[in-house]
Amino acid sequence: MVTIGVVGGGQLARMMVPAAINLGVDIAVFAENDGSSASLATTATGDYRDFGQLTAFASSIEVLTFDHEHVPLEHLVRLRESGTTVYPPPEALALTQNKIHMRRRMDELDIPQPRWTTVTTASDFARAAVRVGGFPCIAKKPVGGYDGKGVRVINSPAECEDWLLEGELLLEELVSFARELAQLGARRPGGQWESWPVVETRQEGGVCSEVIAGKFNSESEVSIKAIEIAEKLAHGVGVVGVLAVELFETHDSRILVNELAMRPHNSGHVMTELSRTSQFEQHLRAISDLPLGSTELVAPFGVMANIFGGVSFEALFLAGESYPQAKIHNYRKSRRPGRKAGHVVVVGSDLDDALAHARGARRIMQGAG
Amino acid sequence: MVTIGVVGGGQLARMMVPAAINLGVDIAVFAENDGSSASLATTATGDYRDFGQLTAFASSIEVLTFDHEHVPLEHLVRLRESGTTVYPPPEALALTQNKIHMRRRMDELDIPQPRWTTVTTASDFARAAVRVGGFPCIAKKPVGGYDGKGVRVINSPAECEDWLLEGELLLEELVSFARELAQLGARRPGGQWESWPVVETRQEGGVCSEVIAGKFNSESEVSIKAIEIAEKLAHGVGVVGVLAVELFETHDSRILVNELAMRPHNSGHVMTELSRTSQFEQHLRAISDLPLGSTELVAPFGVMANIFGGVSFEALFLAGESYPQAKIHNYRKSRRPGRKAGHVVVVGSDLDDALAHARGARRIMQGAG
Repeated sequence: MVTIGVVGGGQLARMMVPAAINLGVDIAVFAENDGSSASLATTATGDYRDFGQLTAFASSIEVLTFDHEHVPLEHLVRLRESGTTVYPPPEALALTQNKIHMRRRMDELDIPQPRWTTVTTASDFARAAVRVGGFPCIAKKPVGGYDGKGVRVINSPAECEDWLLEGELLLEELVSFARELAQLGARRPGGQWESWPVVETRQEGGVCSEVIAGKFNSESEVSIKAIEIAEKLAHGVGVVGVLAVELFETHDSRILVNELAMRPHNSGHVMTELSRTSQFEQHLRAISDLPLGSTELVAPFGVMANIFGGVSFEALFLAGESYPQAKIHNYRKSRRPGRKAGHVVVVGSDLDDALAHARGARRIMQGAG
Repeated sequence: MVTIGVVGGGQLARMMVPAAINLGVDIAVFAENDGSSASLATTATGDYRDFGQLTAFASSIEVLTFDHEHVPLEHLVRLRESGTTVYPPPEALALTQNKIHMRRRMDELDIPQPRWTTVTTASDFARAAVRVGGFPCIAKKPVGGYDGKGVRVINSPAECEDWLLEGELLLEELVSFARELAQLGARRPGGQWESWPVVETRQEGGVCSEVIAGKFNSESEVSIKAIEIAEKLAHGVGVVGVLAVELFETHDSRILVNELAMRPHNSGHVMTELSRTSQFEQHLRAISDLPLGSTELVAPFGVMANIFGGVSFEALFLAGESYPQAKIHNYRKSRRPGRKAGHVVVVGSDLDDALAHARGARRIMQGAG
């Protein structure tokens, strides 16, 4: 049986473990420290930027994959040269490490996206902003941002002076969107591709707060466009594993790619309960080159709500008393304001009920501290 | 957060791990050896009959539970006296360790069961057989049987002479049944009880081969009787955790208790995909004294088929190619003829389809070796 190695001990690595147990593939995690969310499967701890430590970990596994996209690419290329299978391939992962490279590649693939440009000097700034539709626009650090970090809505060049000192920036059109969507799917090495129905994501403060999913989404024109875009991207960049494409749906029903990730993604958590195959199982199937599972939905609707701060035993208790139908995932993270500490999923045949139950469970859990 | 300790490293312990990961309770397994099905969560290995080893394991956990019912009762009583919570309680577990005690207790609780008696000497045998309806009847060793082992259909006392040398036997009426059923539920320490709809179990050679489950079962009169029996038993013997009651449905629609188990049970595996709450999550909730989850079904039908022998990577591959909707659970056991090595569950809105897919996936997997 294949042994999967995961770099990073966050909740995504944690949630790969149940999928690995069911399928019966072995899983080992290289975590930052012993107290990570994925501690049960952790076989090594250390610094993923250290090639020696990565190599030692890789010697015990067959397929290397990731909880995050921060491992230096040159390490991954060298690991692959010495015989470790690395999925997603370093060439694909590179695009998620640099948002400017990603925008450029998507233009080459003719993927619809917001107007974008780069800016390197303060004197360029005004002209660059015009190219993306003028102020206000979006400024992004090309490297290292996540969950709203490294992203600013700016009204003048002055608001990005500090970042510009650090290097080139990405400027993007401020898209006036009707909804934010996410299209997830998975691709095997030979090209087999399976997607889930597109979901709606709702952000608060740049961080995903809720996901609304259901069969109704798979019949819309928007869904067809979203799947076409994701599949074209997956084949175009050679993804292996789960691809998550965050999308803007504009008021005139255009679809534009906002961001992408080549791993299981917060917007796909709802599928653990809503679909026959979770994104975690599908990721393991894809990178093990096993046939992909069915992405059929088992209920008409599903709602996922993130839980921020922390999850206590009391919170589990109180949420369970009021919402026995809510499926709670607890990442076992130490408490920190605003930290994604867990999520709750409710599936059912009534969207309003599912929303009310998911929000109710979250409210109780966050109130319980 | 509570730490659960599980004695025994079989597939039941294995399948408690994903539930523990989702809920975020800690889990530790005391297994027979390092290569058990539950090796990922194994923190100690040794002999569960050794009180010193059990005590050492118990010092690292808060609630002790079981993958099997073979731990000596006197050890459990002593562990509880020294502060470890033991669920199911030793007094309840005792009944699953001795089938004669179980029959006697069920009579006291006025639970419907096959006619039964005990026999200790060859000279008693003919009269004893008359008390259960005559030959052929069922002879059972009171202690240690499972999956058809320790059970014989006999036509004469001579067929049990060897067993009688070992001690007292249980004789039971050979029930002419229409179907075999299983009623599962879970009970919390304070008495909260939640049950799943009754399922039909199909045996081959005394071993469960398939389970048929669905919403249709929850509306029948048989279902109501089955739930009443299980609930009465659960409260009557003070079960904490999952209770599985194996039942005969007679041709005249009576329900008689065949066997019972106070832990997750093969007949409940289908609920991992079919119900909002799996038996593994429910067991952990019950023994942690967390509110029980909803046992509502998410699809009209579910079929579970056991896979015997072993599960290879090739088997996963081939089954996945033909049956992407089949959910495979691979226990990672070494190959042995007739050994339960995994199971497959298919849920859906058509029972014939679900049956065909589950059987098809099993056929391929067993053929692939």
